[in-house]
Amino acid sequence: MLAAEVEQRERVFAVIRSVFTRYGFEPLQTPAFERLDVLLGKYGDDADKLVFKILRRGEHEASGEADLALRYDHTVPLARVAAAYGSRLPSPYKRYALGPVWRAERPGKDRYREFVQCDLDTLGSASPLADAEVLCAHHDAVAELGIGDFRVLLNSRRVLAGLLDAFGVPDELGAGVLISLDKLDKLRPGEVTAELGQRGLAPDRAAELVDVMTAPDAVGRIRDALKQSDEGSAGLDEVDRVQSLVAAQLPPGRIAFTPRLVRGLSYYTGPIWEVVAPGVAGSLGGGGRYDHLIAQLGGPDVPATGSSLGIERILTVLPDGAAGRGRLDVAVTVMGEEFAGKSFGFAAVARAAGLRASVYLGSSGKFGRQLRWASEQGARWCLIYGSAEDEAGTVTVRDMVSGEQTVVPVAELGGYLGRVAGSGQADDHE
Amino acid sequence: MLAAEVEQRERVFAVIRSVFTRYGFEPLQTPAFERLDVLLGKYGDDADKLVFKILRRGEHEASGEADLALRYDHTVPLARVAAAYGSRLPSPYKRYALGPVWRAERPGKDRYREFVQCDLDTLGSASPLADAEVLCAHHDAVAELGIGDFRVLLNSRRVLAGLLDAFGVPDELGAGVLISLDKLDKLRPGEVTAELGQRGLAPDRAAELVDVMTAPDAVGRIRDALKQSDEGSAGLDEVDRVQSLVAAQLPPGRIAFTPRLVRGLSYYTGPIWEVVAPGVAGSLGGGGRYDHLIAQLGGPDVPATGSSLGIERILTVLPDGAAGRGRLDVAVTVMGEEFAGKSFGFAAVARAAGLRASVYLGSSGKFGRQLRWASEQGARWCLIYGSAEDEAGTVTVRDMVSGEQTVVPVAELGGYLGRVAGSGQADDHE
Repeated sequence: MLAAEVEQRERVFAVIRSVFTRYGFEPLQTPAFERLDVLLGKYGDDADKLVFKILRRGEHEASGEADLALRYDHTVPLARVAAAYGSRLPSPYKRYALGPVWRAERPGKDRYREFVQCDLDTLGSASPLADAEVLCAHHDAVAELGIGDFRVLLNSRRVLAGLLDAFGVPDELGAGVLISLDKLDKLRPGEVTAELGQRGLAPDRAAELVDVMTAPDAVGRIRDALKQSDEGSAGLDEVDRVQSLVAAQLPPGRIAFTPRLVRGLSYYTGPIWEVVAPGVAGSLGGGGRYDHLIAQLGGPDVPATGSSLGIERILTVLPDGAAGRGRLDVAVTVMGEEFAGKSFGFAAVARAAGLRASVYLGSSGKFGRQLRWASEQGARWCLIYGSAEDEAGTVTVRDMVSGEQTVVPVAELGGYLGRVAGSGQADDHE
Repeated sequence: MLAAEVEQRERVFAVIRSVFTRYGFEPLQTPAFERLDVLLGKYGDDADKLVFKILRRGEHEASGEADLALRYDHTVPLARVAAAYGSRLPSPYKRYALGPVWRAERPGKDRYREFVQCDLDTLGSASPLADAEVLCAHHDAVAELGIGDFRVLLNSRRVLAGLLDAFGVPDELGAGVLISLDKLDKLRPGEVTAELGQRGLAPDRAAELVDVMTAPDAVGRIRDALKQSDEGSAGLDEVDRVQSLVAAQLPPGRIAFTPRLVRGLSYYTGPIWEVVAPGVAGSLGGGGRYDHLIAQLGGPDVPATGSSLGIERILTVLPDGAAGRGRLDVAVTVMGEEFAGKSFGFAAVARAAGLRASVYLGSSGKFGRQLRWASEQGARWCLIYGSAEDEAGTVTVRDMVSGEQTVVPVAELGGYLGRVAGSGQADDHE
């Protein structure tokens, strides 16, 4: 990853950190790897296959066994910390984390084996306010980055459970059926019906389910169906509660109840959401409530909710931030080895005036070659110091835009550079 | 790693980035893992054992073999990039990298399996100016962090080769002898002499070598000895050249020629240096010239020099930066579920005024409990909104320092908070 991209990322991180901090979240950082058994069995079987495993070391290496694994997300490591050290954390505990996660996917367009997630989580609150707050902070970060065209899809795992219930889907088929339904944004209805059939769902049930999910008044019909089950009603309440808290803070139409939304990871238990943008495969991020994960890791049964932003996806929809700024403000020529020390010192003087400066590090003693280097670096000024300057006790400062050259006494170089750079550090105090 | 430490690290990173940028270095980021064969054989045998290896995936997992490995430093990944994409990089190429590296050490005091290194490197310049520039930038970063008490030790691999030469150490014993000599800052002379003997060096040679290295006029005597060999003379020239370039920029006595300095990694070829501080085991960082590493990785034989700072060590000598700032500026009570939406909105108003704000996420409806929460968060103000306020269309703003409460109309809340916070965003324009 080269300079322009690294710098744009740093700007994105700064915006996200600032939004998360404004919501009262504080940073927590966990190591890149966890014990393997901590990660396995938390995300679902398909995800388990994508965990990068680290071979045991020393005399155990030959066993071919793994004991550690690279983190797959920031959520399970947080839950591990909460299970182990929860009593030392404030309650509720609101934290954020920025850093890479690793998944052994086949690399492809917008799909990486290493990518950065920005997470925020609230542990210790069962209130829909906690879900709404996480969701709003996530939303504000995306908005503040300058992305105007995006939407938030909202659902609840309990809505999904109610849906399976209402349409009489046998328990053992539930997970598979949901995975197929989630494809309704990519596949044609007939294809999804066929897939449901292959999963063992009775053809008429499959057809009915797909029919309801894709009807023009799908949300209304699904609401009606959900009201027939306790779980479905509870899920609807959950969705409505979060939506009403959040909607007042967001532009109209930004958030929509989306019953087909599943979210792949198996640890979710309540409201779930995803942030989507036109032209982005998958999502810009998402999250939800995961109430029993900490207990599953041996801790107390602390309610929890969180949301995660994928930086690589966000960068694909950001306007190109490559500033086109040169690498240097001041390029210093080295007109012979006997002047190297002086030239090296002039670069330090320029830096002390707040400018980016470097001496010429190549082997050519030719002025033309060094001037070309100064130009390639995008330098605003080029300093020249040869025999003539050495005798006179001056430096020649070349303006790389106008080509004009000014002779400056060595002792006044810092003040001169400060003045022409408009930074004035050196002289404005006089 | 909890909030105060994460925040202090971010401040340290910002200072280091700013210094490196001022020197004209640009960021380059490489992935956390590399192909295993890229890493092995570059650092030396002992280091190879400390590389974390990643198990092959899918059908190959059962083989128990590793194909990838976590990076051990930032230097070899950079050399791999330069070997593969060198022609697309500017020449000379000056880059920096900030990020974790991993070593399978037994964790201990100031010794971690995951730690952050900040590297800067110049590829494509054989000039001592490049070494001096890297070293100065490294030095300035440490100084700008506010660490006053540190020193730079300077040596050259060619000085070490000349030393072995001058004292007639057989080639096959060279590496081991240097490792023992490097312990002269920790062990007594007699212990080192004994260790040299165990390595197979003739007792009189071992005694003579240790005697010279520990003499009051060691540096002078070593200089004399080095002048007898070509390699030693060349190494001395190298050290003197870098030292004279650098010394003019540094406080007197900051840098010293230190013939016993070895630096563990085997890829160094020329000048080497280490930054040390009292009370820090090991060093704050170090670096040197590694001219043939890129060729070793299949690229052109590009000269290279670089330096690396260890953040964890630096943090141990930094004054404790825990600012003691509270988590929140504004804490918003939730005095009943019917007011949750309004309270949620007030937090958003406070954030829009540039303040850190959050609603109460706990389950207690008691005012006293919620006020205690506001206090625990270090909040400067607490917003109260119950039936009375709801009827009057006001919010009660409690100053958590004075205990004074002010009734503010809902519509004026943002302006009021902006005013009392002294930020004035909301009203000063009037």
